[in-house]
Amino acid sequence: MPQALNIAVAGLGTVGAATAQLLRVNADLLALRCGRPIVLRAVSARDRGRDRGVDLAGVDWVDDAVRLATHPGIDVVVELIGGAEGVARDLVVASLTAGRPVVTANKALLAHHGTELARLAEGKGTSLHFEAAVAGGIPIVKALREGLAANAIERIYGVLNGTCNYILTTMRATGRDFSAVLKEAQKLGYAEADPSFDVDGVDTAHKLSILTALAFGTEVDFASVHIEGIRRVTADDIRFADELGYRVKLLGIARRTADGVEQRVHPCLVPDSAPIAHVPGAFNAVVADGDFVGSTVFEGRGAGGGPTASAVVADLVDIARGLRVPTFAIAADRLTPPHPFAIQHHRGAYYICLTVRDVPGVMADVTAIFRDEQISLDSMLQRGRAPGEPVPVVLETHECEEAGMARALKNIGRLETMLRPPRMIRIEAF
Amino acid sequence: MPQALNIAVAGLGTVGAATAQLLRVNADLLALRCGRPIVLRAVSARDRGRDRGVDLAGVDWVDDAVRLATHPGIDVVVELIGGAEGVARDLVVASLTAGRPVVTANKALLAHHGTELARLAEGKGTSLHFEAAVAGGIPIVKALREGLAANAIERIYGVLNGTCNYILTTMRATGRDFSAVLKEAQKLGYAEADPSFDVDGVDTAHKLSILTALAFGTEVDFASVHIEGIRRVTADDIRFADELGYRVKLLGIARRTADGVEQRVHPCLVPDSAPIAHVPGAFNAVVADGDFVGSTVFEGRGAGGGPTASAVVADLVDIARGLRVPTFAIAADRLTPPHPFAIQHHRGAYYICLTVRDVPGVMADVTAIFRDEQISLDSMLQRGRAPGEPVPVVLETHECEEAGMARALKNIGRLETMLRPPRMIRIEAF
Repeated sequence: MPQALNIAVAGLGTVGAATAQLLRVNADLLALRCGRPIVLRAVSARDRGRDRGVDLAGVDWVDDAVRLATHPGIDVVVELIGGAEGVARDLVVASLTAGRPVVTANKALLAHHGTELARLAEGKGTSLHFEAAVAGGIPIVKALREGLAANAIERIYGVLNGTCNYILTTMRATGRDFSAVLKEAQKLGYAEADPSFDVDGVDTAHKLSILTALAFGTEVDFASVHIEGIRRVTADDIRFADELGYRVKLLGIARRTADGVEQRVHPCLVPDSAPIAHVPGAFNAVVADGDFVGSTVFEGRGAGGGPTASAVVADLVDIARGLRVPTFAIAADRLTPPHPFAIQHHRGAYYICLTVRDVPGVMADVTAIFRDEQISLDSMLQRGRAPGEPVPVVLETHECEEAGMARALKNIGRLETMLRPPRMIRIEAF
Repeated sequence: MPQALNIAVAGLGTVGAATAQLLRVNADLLALRCGRPIVLRAVSARDRGRDRGVDLAGVDWVDDAVRLATHPGIDVVVELIGGAEGVARDLVVASLTAGRPVVTANKALLAHHGTELARLAEGKGTSLHFEAAVAGGIPIVKALREGLAANAIERIYGVLNGTCNYILTTMRATGRDFSAVLKEAQKLGYAEADPSFDVDGVDTAHKLSILTALAFGTEVDFASVHIEGIRRVTADDIRFADELGYRVKLLGIARRTADGVEQRVHPCLVPDSAPIAHVPGAFNAVVADGDFVGSTVFEGRGAGGGPTASAVVADLVDIARGLRVPTFAIAADRLTPPHPFAIQHHRGAYYICLTVRDVPGVMADVTAIFRDEQISLDSMLQRGRAPGEPVPVVLETHECEEAGMARALKNIGRLETMLRPPRMIRIEAF
């Protein structure tokens, strides 16, 4: 048997434990596929005593994770600690500096430091792998870097956060409001005690910024992602969207435009006929549109120990087989700065929900404001009549520019007949 | 600029012309991603004079395609001629024998000779690539060979033939029968003049046998695929399936069982809730279930020049980057013979459609036959009453063994009250 690939794992949470278990359960299969065994030689985790359901006999325990960068006899360091700074970053930098390949599931680290880490890795003649950082078990990083490498990618978008997708799916199924469903999701363990990272769109934006670099050959540019979360989506919005033939999804979308690379994360109305409209519960899906391949869809579990371990070990298999591709598909020193795209320049259709006092002339005022911004309406939905009382009015616009829409909504919000601030959700046509 | 990867293309039909075009249109991008240019140096095709919409100035024309195997200055041979035997096979064998890597889109060749070609390639220290042979532009070969390599694959299935999917989708949308829709598909160019290769399931079986080898580490075993096409699916079947909450799809399914690897191609009833139920028109989709990753879905255009060229050039990019993985994910000399699985041992639920004379006692006879085979019924649908006249009766069974079902259908077919042979479609629960 040829020489084993000896690995060290830093972080033995859900993903770390599942990775250790996978390496044991599928050891023979992996040896067959790699032509050599992959062996866990060293670990680092906070609590040695905890039962993780996996046998770690014979594995070195190292208290200071950063030491794994230079621990003797290790070929690859797997970083599963998490976080954009601190120990995780120190370990990755130290390992790459020592010329050791790194496998990581750390999207925050890559979103904030991806370009510099790629340059460090390639400068040191080693490699940085992160299939597990985006969309769990879906091999989307490999698909963009290799499988679709013949294409100029025109657009990439996806459901990248299972928590948000679970909440929106459950809101639709039950008709309940965001806060009630969030509470339940927290009780079930589908959402964190502090849910802001997920529901405010940050996690989706981390992943999107990585996909953008892979797809467009640009530096990772998290700072220029326009981010809105799902807290303001109401049960009414989801119901009205349904009536108009749409589903509400939190999407990350990146698109090359004449003015630069547009990166945005926000709730979207997507047509019921689009595959992305049907991504269930805790699943993730990514759609990549290439100039020759057309539209391709990749769907699977976006989180959890098993799926994420599958991605971590896929990277280890690549390393064991001697595959090496530039970190972000092209050499790191050839990545170009993206020209950030301001959301004001976005063009698209919009869903608008107004809560108005049902008096004559309301719609005349509203439509006059839209007319002044050259925004034309596609459809209008008014539910019930209750003279003098609040009624919801739902509007669907044709494509227009975001800046004009923002001005229109500001002016509409000032109308005396508006009982609540207007709500807006962008419509995506796929 | 480092040394170019010089390629020769045999066959300039739709896919060959699109490949030449892609290499030209995306030349700079490919050079950036590969670190070296990919250059078309030689071609072979029947008709030099034909306008293929692509500039071939400066490219060598070689009349005898097999000569490309030894044409000077060529690094990779791309075989786009097609067919399991003849020139295509001769060229691939000659190229591999000469130590030249081969890229092919030829599923028939791989289905019939995949194992021996893989052994030849690996024995000569070269490589055989075939992303384009299965599911067009969807990078499913790479996904199975690399992206999901950490998993023991439990089952893989897919919509692998766009012609059949187009016909079944159109039958559902229009309520028209198979032969009418086939004729229209032929007129539109979606089906060949001789459609048997597609509609009888052979093309799907070719692709399935390749996926099976990749997923399960078995020799390519086309001969043991159980194959049924879609000719016998009626508009009624599709309508009744709809009423029961199913869609009718032609699937290729491979599954590891205790008794061996089951490979089958036949029309299936799939639950409306399954992603595979919604694969539109000419698209393909593949679902792979792994022990750690769970269920992953890959969808995209399954045929056509652009998507297939995308897959061909993805293989060229791998070669240009120096990536090499065993042909079928494990070394060819480690592939094991699959234990063929006879369809008689298949277990599953069934949709049955009977056309009976509406007289008392019919259903007593039918249900007694099912009882004798220990087959229990899940639901029954009878449309209308017309005493003494033909009425359709639709039955959905619980899981049972195919052998018992075959005996039951034979006995039911002999009943005097049966006006047509019973129709059966297997139900797949995902």
